[in-house]
Amino acid sequence: MTDASDDTKNPKTEDFRPEARAPRGFADKRARDLRAEKSILEAVSAVYERYGFEALDTGAFEYADALGKFLPDSDRPNEGVFALQDDDDQWMALRYDLTAPLARFAAQNWETLPKPFRRYAFGPVWRNEKPGPGRFRQFIQCDADTVGSARPEADAEIIAMAVEGLEAAGLPRGASVLKINNRKLLNGLLTGAGATSEGQKLAVLRAVDKLDRLGVDGVRLLLGEGRLDDSGDFTKGAGLAGKAIDSVLDFVQAGAIGVGGGRSATLNNIAKVVAGSAEGDEGLEELAKIDAALTSLGVADDQAIIDPSIVRGLEYYTGAVFEAELLLSTTDEKGNKVTFGSIGGGGRYDDLVARFTGQPVPATGFSFGVSRLAAALRAAGREPASAARGPVVIINFDQAHMGEYFAVVGQLRAAGIPAEVYLGTSGMRPQMKYADRRLSPAAIMLGGDEIAAGTVTIKDLDLGRELASGVADNAAWKAERPGQQTIPRGDLVAAVKKIIGG
Amino acid sequence: MTDASDDTKNPKTEDFRPEARAPRGFADKRARDLRAEKSILEAVSAVYERYGFEALDTGAFEYADALGKFLPDSDRPNEGVFALQDDDDQWMALRYDLTAPLARFAAQNWETLPKPFRRYAFGPVWRNEKPGPGRFRQFIQCDADTVGSARPEADAEIIAMAVEGLEAAGLPRGASVLKINNRKLLNGLLTGAGATSEGQKLAVLRAVDKLDRLGVDGVRLLLGEGRLDDSGDFTKGAGLAGKAIDSVLDFVQAGAIGVGGGRSATLNNIAKVVAGSAEGDEGLEELAKIDAALTSLGVADDQAIIDPSIVRGLEYYTGAVFEAELLLSTTDEKGNKVTFGSIGGGGRYDDLVARFTGQPVPATGFSFGVSRLAAALRAAGREPASAARGPVVIINFDQAHMGEYFAVVGQLRAAGIPAEVYLGTSGMRPQMKYADRRLSPAAIMLGGDEIAAGTVTIKDLDLGRELASGVADNAAWKAERPGQQTIPRGDLVAAVKKIIGG
Repeated sequence: MTDASDDTKNPKTEDFRPEARAPRGFADKRARDLRAEKSILEAVSAVYERYGFEALDTGAFEYADALGKFLPDSDRPNEGVFALQDDDDQWMALRYDLTAPLARFAAQNWETLPKPFRRYAFGPVWRNEKPGPGRFRQFIQCDADTVGSARPEADAEIIAMAVEGLEAAGLPRGASVLKINNRKLLNGLLTGAGATSEGQKLAVLRAVDKLDRLGVDGVRLLLGEGRLDDSGDFTKGAGLAGKAIDSVLDFVQAGAIGVGGGRSATLNNIAKVVAGSAEGDEGLEELAKIDAALTSLGVADDQAIIDPSIVRGLEYYTGAVFEAELLLSTTDEKGNKVTFGSIGGGGRYDDLVARFTGQPVPATGFSFGVSRLAAALRAAGREPASAARGPVVIINFDQAHMGEYFAVVGQLRAAGIPAEVYLGTSGMRPQMKYADRRLSPAAIMLGGDEIAAGTVTIKDLDLGRELASGVADNAAWKAERPGQQTIPRGDLVAAVKKIIGG
Repeated sequence: MTDASDDTKNPKTEDFRPEARAPRGFADKRARDLRAEKSILEAVSAVYERYGFEALDTGAFEYADALGKFLPDSDRPNEGVFALQDDDDQWMALRYDLTAPLARFAAQNWETLPKPFRRYAFGPVWRNEKPGPGRFRQFIQCDADTVGSARPEADAEIIAMAVEGLEAAGLPRGASVLKINNRKLLNGLLTGAGATSEGQKLAVLRAVDKLDRLGVDGVRLLLGEGRLDDSGDFTKGAGLAGKAIDSVLDFVQAGAIGVGGGRSATLNNIAKVVAGSAEGDEGLEELAKIDAALTSLGVADDQAIIDPSIVRGLEYYTGAVFEAELLLSTTDEKGNKVTFGSIGGGGRYDDLVARFTGQPVPATGFSFGVSRLAAALRAAGREPASAARGPVVIINFDQAHMGEYFAVVGQLRAAGIPAEVYLGTSGMRPQMKYADRRLSPAAIMLGGDEIAAGTVTIKDLDLGRELASGVADNAAWKAERPGQQTIPRGDLVAAVKKIIGG
C-alpha cells in the first residue's frame, strides 16, 4: 500500500507518507481473539468476586524506583521495561507485572485499606524484550492476591479460586492441575544436610527445576559435581554430598502425579525426608493446613496436588508456591502435539510492601496470562462456540429500498441477532463475499419482488461452509435446512435463529 | 508510611526505600469505579456487536510518525504524547486516541479486510499533558467507526448506535440527545457570502463554537469586526459583512432544541439559508439521507436532532459531525448543579487512511470517554445498584473451626453470593469493622454453640447502615428484618438473599 518513492522517506516533505506498521512485538487483536479473552476474564472475574476479592486497576506507569529494578547509574534505567522521563525529570516505566503496582498501592493506602486486602486485577503489562513468535512485548495478565494475611488458609483460598477460575474459563475438571510446594521444605532439608550458602541453595533450585527436561539422572549430576551435556558443555553442579543428593531426589519425587494417595499421602512421604529441621517442619505444617482448608473448600485430590518438584522462579517467593499445569493434550495448526505445561502460578511473598514501608507484610497470590490461556483453550479445541460468528448481512440492491433494509435489520437486532445492512457500493457477488469474510451465518435478500410480496429470501451461509468442509451431509440437510428459502417477513427471526442454533 | 531518613533518598544504599506514590495524573481505580465502567462497556459492546461491528484491539504503542503529529527536528517528538525510542532508534509513542491506531491498522490490512470495515474498540489512551482535578493522563475511550463507506447511511448507523448505546449504558430516553450537523453547510454558506479563505472559515467556526457561552450578540461581534470582553481584552473577529453575519446566525439557530418540528423542520429552515451553493446543497442532501435512515432505524426526533450550531473541533472532520449532550441535570458531591454538556462525539473524516496510502478512504465514527460517562451517570444518580456491594463476611473466632467456616462460605458461593472467611488475626470488633469497610451486606457468626446446634447467626449490616442513614424505619423493620438472627444452617442462603434483595 505504501508508495515507495523517495518522498515517503523524508518526513519534512509535504507528502511524507509513513509506513503503516505496528512496532515489533505488539499484536493487533481481532474479534475472535478478543471474544476468547473476554470470555475468560468474565468467567474468572465472577469466580474471584464470589470469593470476596475486589477489583483494582492502577495506571500503566509507575515511578521506576517503585518497580524494584532501579539502576541509578544508567541513562535509561530498567533494562527490560519501557521507561521515560517525566517533565520533572523523574523516571517512570510501564508496569511489567501487576504485583509491583499492587505493592505500591498497598503501601500507599495501608492505613485506610480493609485488611487483609483482597484484590484481583487484569490488564496489559509491558516487557521491553526481544519479541519473537508467540513472544509479545505487551500481553494481558490476570492476578489475585491477598495482602496482610500470613495464614496458610489464605494460600488455600488462592489455590481453590485458581482451580475454580480455570474450570470456569473453559478447562474441564481433569484438564489442568494445581501443583503446590513450599520453599521451606527444601530449605530445611538443605540446612539439615549442611548446604547453607545462598549460592548452593540457588544451584539446587536450578537443578531441581530441570527435572522434567533432564530426568532423575541428569538432576543427580547437577546436584553433585556437575553435568556434561551432549554438546560437550559442562555445567558445574551444586556440590552436594551423596546422601544429601539422595534426600533431595527422594524429596522432589515425593508427590509426582501417579504416586497416588492424594495430598495427605504426599505429605507423609515428604515428612519422612524433611522431618527434623525447624524450617522443614514449618513448611510441612503450612502445607498440612493448606491441604485441610482445600478439603473444606471442596478441592479434591485430582484438582490440587502437592508436588515438591515445583520451583516456580528462583527468588521472590518465601513460602508456598503454586503452579497450574495443563494436562490436556493440545495440537497446533498442523496437527502436531503441543505441550503447554505451566499456564499460571504464584505463591507467598513477604517483601514487596516492605520495600516501601520497611514493615514486612505477608502476601500471597496467583497470576496467569490471559492470551496464553486463550491459546491453550484454542489448541485444546475448547474455544467458545460464538468466538468466530459474524453478523447477518442484508444485501443492498438499491438505494431506493434502504428504508426496507433498515426495517429488517432493526427487526433482527431487536431480537438480539447481530445484523447489518451492507453499506459499501459493490454489487451482489462482492457483497456475498463480504458476508463470507465476516463469517456471517446468513445473507438476507430483499428485491423488488420480495418487498412487494412482504417476503424475504434467506441464504444459509453456515450451511454453505459446512457443506464445503464436509461437516453437513448434502442429502440430510435438504429436508431440514434449505440452503436458500423465501419466507414471509414475519418468520424471518425464527428462520435465522434456526440457522444460528443449528 | 515512608521512613523520612536520608537513607530513603539515596537509591544506592542497601536500605533505600522508594516513596509509595503513583505518577501524577494516573488514577488508582477501586471496585466501585471499575464496576461502573464495566457495566457501561458491556452494555455498549452488546449494542455495537448487534449492529455488526467487530471488536479490535491494537497495542499501546504506535510509531510516532504514524500518529500524525510528527516533529522530526525535536529530540523528544510529539509534545502531548508519551514517546520513547525503541532499540532500533525509531520513536514510538503511546496512543493518544483510538482513531490513529485504526487508521494505521486499516491502511496496513486494507487488501484483506472485509469492506466497509466496521470496528469498535475500547481501552486506555494516554495524553502527556498537565494533570489537574478530573484531568488524567490516562483514560478509557470507546470508539466505533465504519471505514470505507461514503454513504450517509453509514453516518446514520453510527448515530443510531450511539443513541442506543448511551441508553443501554444507563441514560434513559430523554436524558441525552444526539446533535447532528454537517461541515459542508456552513462552508457552502460562507463560500456563497464570499468568505473563502481557510483562516476566515476557521474564525467563523471558532465564533460559532462560542454560541453557548456568549449568546447571539457575542457571536455577532466575533463574526464581524471583533469583541471586547469584560476584562478589556479584544478578540479580532472573522470580518464578515452584515448580511453574511445574519445568514450565519440564522443558520446556527435553525435547529436549537425548542425550535420544534423535529429533524425535517430543521432541514427546511437550513435549506432557506444555505440553498444555492453546491457544497451547501451537498451537505443538505447528506443530512436528508441521514434523517431518512434514522427514521427507518427507529430513531425519533427527541433522540437525535439536527443542530447547525455544533462545531466539534476545528479541523479533522470533513462532512457530518455529531455530538452527544447530557440533558440530565446533575449535582456534585456538595449538591451543586453541574452541567456536563458533551459526553461524546464524532463525525466523518476522509484523510486519516490517506496519510499512509495516499488513497482517500471515507470513514465515520463516534467516540466517548468511559470514565466521563460513568461520572455523568453517578452525578445523575444513575450508578448501577450493585456498584458498591461487598462480600458476606464469615467472622473468624477460632482456628479450630476453620473447616466449618469454609463449609459455610462454600455454601454461599455455590449460591452465587460473594462471601469470604475473615483471614486476618484480629478480634471480633475489628472483624466487624472490616466487614463494614467492605460494605458487606451481612456478617455470619459461627461460635461453638451454633456449630453444636447446626445453626448460624446472621448480622444484617445493610440494615445497620440504612438505620444509621435514616433510610430504614426503626419500628417497621423489627418485624420484617431483625438486625441479628440465629437460624438453621440450611436457611442461610435464603436469609442472606432476603437481606441483599431487601
